[in-house]
Amino acid sequence: MADIQAQGLYDFEGDKENGELSFYSGDVLTIIRQDIGDGWWEARGPNGEQGLIPESYVEIMSAPEPSFPPPPPPVGIATAPVNILPSNGFTNGPHDSGGGGLRAGGDPALTAQPSYDEWDDEWDDDDESSNSTVGTSGGQDLQGQGNFGLAVARREGKQLSPTGVEMSKYGTVKSSFNRFSSFAKTGGDAFLMGQVDTNVPESDRIKIVETVEGPRWLNQDSPYTCSVASPKKETKMKGLKTYIAYQLTPTFSNIQVSRRYKHFDWLHERLEAKFPCVPIPPLPDKQVTGRYEEDFVQERMKFLQMWVDRMVKHPIISRSEVFLHFLTCTDEKKWKQGKRKAEKDEYQGAKFFLVLSPPQQALDMRDVDAKMEQFQKFVTHMNENAKQLNAIMHDYAKKQMGPFKREYTKIGTSFKQLAMTFNMDTTETSKQLTAAIDHTGDAYNEIGVAFERQPPTDAYPLMDSLLEYRGLLNVYPDVLKVHEGATGKAKECLKLQEEGKMTEVEVQKVLHRADTISYGTLAEMNHFHAERAKEFKLMMQLYLRSQIKFYQDMTKKLETALGHYDHVQSPT
Amino acid sequence: MADIQAQGLYDFEGDKENGELSFYSGDVLTIIRQDIGDGWWEARGPNGEQGLIPESYVEIMSAPEPSFPPPPPPVGIATAPVNILPSNGFTNGPHDSGGGGLRAGGDPALTAQPSYDEWDDEWDDDDESSNSTVGTSGGQDLQGQGNFGLAVARREGKQLSPTGVEMSKYGTVKSSFNRFSSFAKTGGDAFLMGQVDTNVPESDRIKIVETVEGPRWLNQDSPYTCSVASPKKETKMKGLKTYIAYQLTPTFSNIQVSRRYKHFDWLHERLEAKFPCVPIPPLPDKQVTGRYEEDFVQERMKFLQMWVDRMVKHPIISRSEVFLHFLTCTDEKKWKQGKRKAEKDEYQGAKFFLVLSPPQQALDMRDVDAKMEQFQKFVTHMNENAKQLNAIMHDYAKKQMGPFKREYTKIGTSFKQLAMTFNMDTTETSKQLTAAIDHTGDAYNEIGVAFERQPPTDAYPLMDSLLEYRGLLNVYPDVLKVHEGATGKAKECLKLQEEGKMTEVEVQKVLHRADTISYGTLAEMNHFHAERAKEFKLMMQLYLRSQIKFYQDMTKKLETALGHYDHVQSPT
Repeated sequence: MADIQAQGLYDFEGDKENGELSFYSGDVLTIIRQDIGDGWWEARGPNGEQGLIPESYVEIMSAPEPSFPPPPPPVGIATAPVNILPSNGFTNGPHDSGGGGLRAGGDPALTAQPSYDEWDDEWDDDDESSNSTVGTSGGQDLQGQGNFGLAVARREGKQLSPTGVEMSKYGTVKSSFNRFSSFAKTGGDAFLMGQVDTNVPESDRIKIVETVEGPRWLNQDSPYTCSVASPKKETKMKGLKTYIAYQLTPTFSNIQVSRRYKHFDWLHERLEAKFPCVPIPPLPDKQVTGRYEEDFVQERMKFLQMWVDRMVKHPIISRSEVFLHFLTCTDEKKWKQGKRKAEKDEYQGAKFFLVLSPPQQALDMRDVDAKMEQFQKFVTHMNENAKQLNAIMHDYAKKQMGPFKREYTKIGTSFKQLAMTFNMDTTETSKQLTAAIDHTGDAYNEIGVAFERQPPTDAYPLMDSLLEYRGLLNVYPDVLKVHEGATGKAKECLKLQEEGKMTEVEVQKVLHRADTISYGTLAEMNHFHAERAKEFKLMMQLYLRSQIKFYQDMTKKLETALGHYDHVQSPT
Repeated sequence: MADIQAQGLYDFEGDKENGELSFYSGDVLTIIRQDIGDGWWEARGPNGEQGLIPESYVEIMSAPEPSFPPPPPPVGIATAPVNILPSNGFTNGPHDSGGGGLRAGGDPALTAQPSYDEWDDEWDDDDESSNSTVGTSGGQDLQGQGNFGLAVARREGKQLSPTGVEMSKYGTVKSSFNRFSSFAKTGGDAFLMGQVDTNVPESDRIKIVETVEGPRWLNQDSPYTCSVASPKKETKMKGLKTYIAYQLTPTFSNIQVSRRYKHFDWLHERLEAKFPCVPIPPLPDKQVTGRYEEDFVQERMKFLQMWVDRMVKHPIISRSEVFLHFLTCTDEKKWKQGKRKAEKDEYQGAKFFLVLSPPQQALDMRDVDAKMEQFQKFVTHMNENAKQLNAIMHDYAKKQMGPFKREYTKIGTSFKQLAMTFNMDTTETSKQLTAAIDHTGDAYNEIGVAFERQPPTDAYPLMDSLLEYRGLLNVYPDVLKVHEGATGKAKECLKLQEEGKMTEVEVQKVLHRADTISYGTLAEMNHFHAERAKEFKLMMQLYLRSQIKFYQDMTKKLETALGHYDHVQSPT
């Protein structure tokens, strides 16, 4: 790769002790690394010295020079730049150093350097830094550049979050992570062509059964739930490093385990690697600034809980060894062992399909294609619907808290002002009326406040659910591509048979194996639909119940206000 | 008065047959009359020829020349310009040809030309014209120039009136009509100085009694009500002239009488002339365009009903001969007689106070002054409150019908679109959920429509009442000036006594007569307060009840929507 040259836009006086590199406006720097994160790059200066520079202070040498004044530099700099968020727009782990292959395999930290693979290893990018006031401008840059896979209207910082803390964005989409490419690299072809061992013990087999509603995973009930709670700020290295640990308690054991974001992130990778026909919804985005603040921690925990809920409800994942390891292991040594075992799982990726026991009946390929096309449309439309509904709810919530509230407050104030004037007439009956009007004013003011307080009880939960769904819907097309690729391969084989290059027996075997992939994909599709129907029923009920309560409360307030007039004597 | 010169701003090609005068841009014209109305003036051209000109085409010769293009000329021209609305900004009758004196007396049509004083006389400015397509631009001009004494937010044409007809503005304020000047001209001084006969028969006397709440008119209950209904379009002169007649039916006689706007207008004048200490609320404004349209007629009738209601509820007016004549006379000849009698009433204006029988006890002038000052403040504040509340209600109604409706419709549409996508999954449980979500969409759409339809049931009635009150509050300060003037005169006499120019006996008599005026004014003030307390109680109750019903209905809709989810089976 050719050197990247950048020119200083402003003078920067770096802190040498923190590894920062000073330079002047106009200096030409050679950029060595751009994946450090937090708004920092590593660069070599005109005199050959190396160090960290704020990326917003320089400009890659081809873009036009902007004329606005310099933004404040990122505050502080991480002492372990290797572990800082990468700035390539993806925040789901430092291992995602580029598109293409399976992430676990591409990360030397995981495979080549076992010393990183420790309970308290240095793989700490997610919730620690040596300086808790991580740069704002750098963090914003990151978010602005592609921190959210979802271009969806989400609560807008202070305006919508009553506590004034910008909420975490949810749902990173790793567009560079291609499930099909992973499938291929883990032996997709070999599987289809029957070149791999299929000697899976019966007890490990995952059964797919035919039902009136199509193929389904055998076990559909959720065997347990798991709470994510009690986030604790913990430190290590004599307080130099700080992180948040969440306490997970699965109902089947009732034993609490402590997990950090990085563990979730590792699990997420493992699940994606292992189950090629299962969409693994993204974790809530990481956030650099304010990540120890109570509201951020609560918000992230909420989305981690939603993520765990979805995994727990999945008939395959909830029973998988890697997931159970994550939910139960309390021993440091065993954790390490389980971690390595999961990473070396012989039935991951394409080889997962070896484990499936689908119905024997062959599938009609055109029928499956039609179903997949329909489902692909469904996913696209539902994603669009969820995006729109989310945007509308966002807008509605904003209006309730702003203009709607103001409207009722104006009415309330106006009634109260009228009461103040009426108070100038001190006759008894007039005073009674005045008091009643004043109370009506109060009622409308209270209704205004109620409008402001309403969204957290209905619009926000619905928006959270929609956002979580969008994360799932965003990754689903990649999963469908695995199927598309596999059936594409099968179709190629049919062509080869026509051309006499493959025998019918060989091709039938390929088709049978392609059917296994189709059965898995269809079973997962049906699982998705069933969960969706369940969850949207609950979401809608929750939303409507809260709306009903809101308007009932409003009615009560007005009825009380009206009641005050009953006692007003009419003057003679 | 010096000739008014005006210069043509644009070329105007007048229709000579209609009495219009052509002129060119730059021509200097002499304006002969400006009180023709409908956007027309009478002028003499450079060559001495006279005719009607559109006032917007010329400029009085001192203002700077505007540079915008010519507006369209007023469409059509009335053949009877004498009867067209005057353009001096007041629309309550053609007789109001300028400030100052008592209007009836200043109108030669009423006094000098008895031929006008006929049941079907030529005094037809209000609801007829020989051309029903009266100029729009002229009409708008009129309204823009000062057709409304109230600069209050009123329903804005199509936006707020579901039928698309611009509503009548209510409440003309005759700022040039000074009640005190009327009082003075009808012998205020003479009354105070005891120079007029006080030999009023006991039966004609109006008693003021002292109560715990201050002086009150003796009879405070409303002896009857009177409906204003069944507006009929009638014609005369073989259909050449058209007008609307309203049917009034007082409960004490149950005999229907037919009255036109001009009769109301005459009555309004009479009441103002006769009762100097009683605020007579203005009639609803006249309107030139669209005055035969159903919505306008209904709207005007509504405000005429409100006006009649207020008069009927007044203890003095409801029992007065002139008012009873208006409510009962069905005979053309008797009408004429009664009309003349009322106009020649010997106890009108300042002489009305001769009729009053106040308590004997002398009033403390400073105490009365303080009360009046307080009341003056009350009127000002209440007027301001009513204006503000009206504006807020107007705004709120507009928002309900626009943005609020849209917000709920967007939510409804969004749910329905989600249901459409979900409809792609044809399994039974999914279909049930889909139907329920679709119904929720319908519910929100219906709520949107309900928001749009709500204002006519609560905000509009409240706004109507506030507007009617503002008419009353706008004229009240003039009434208070009568009192102020009278007490001012009394204070002058006290000064003359100090200077030895009046004897104590003489001055005591003046003070006693000034007390009569104070008693009348205080009795009226207390009447106003009592009515206000009664009416605002009812207004608020009406408003709140309608609001409560609205939110109850909304709750019901949401409950029904929620109920649909009860039947949705959860998939396994």
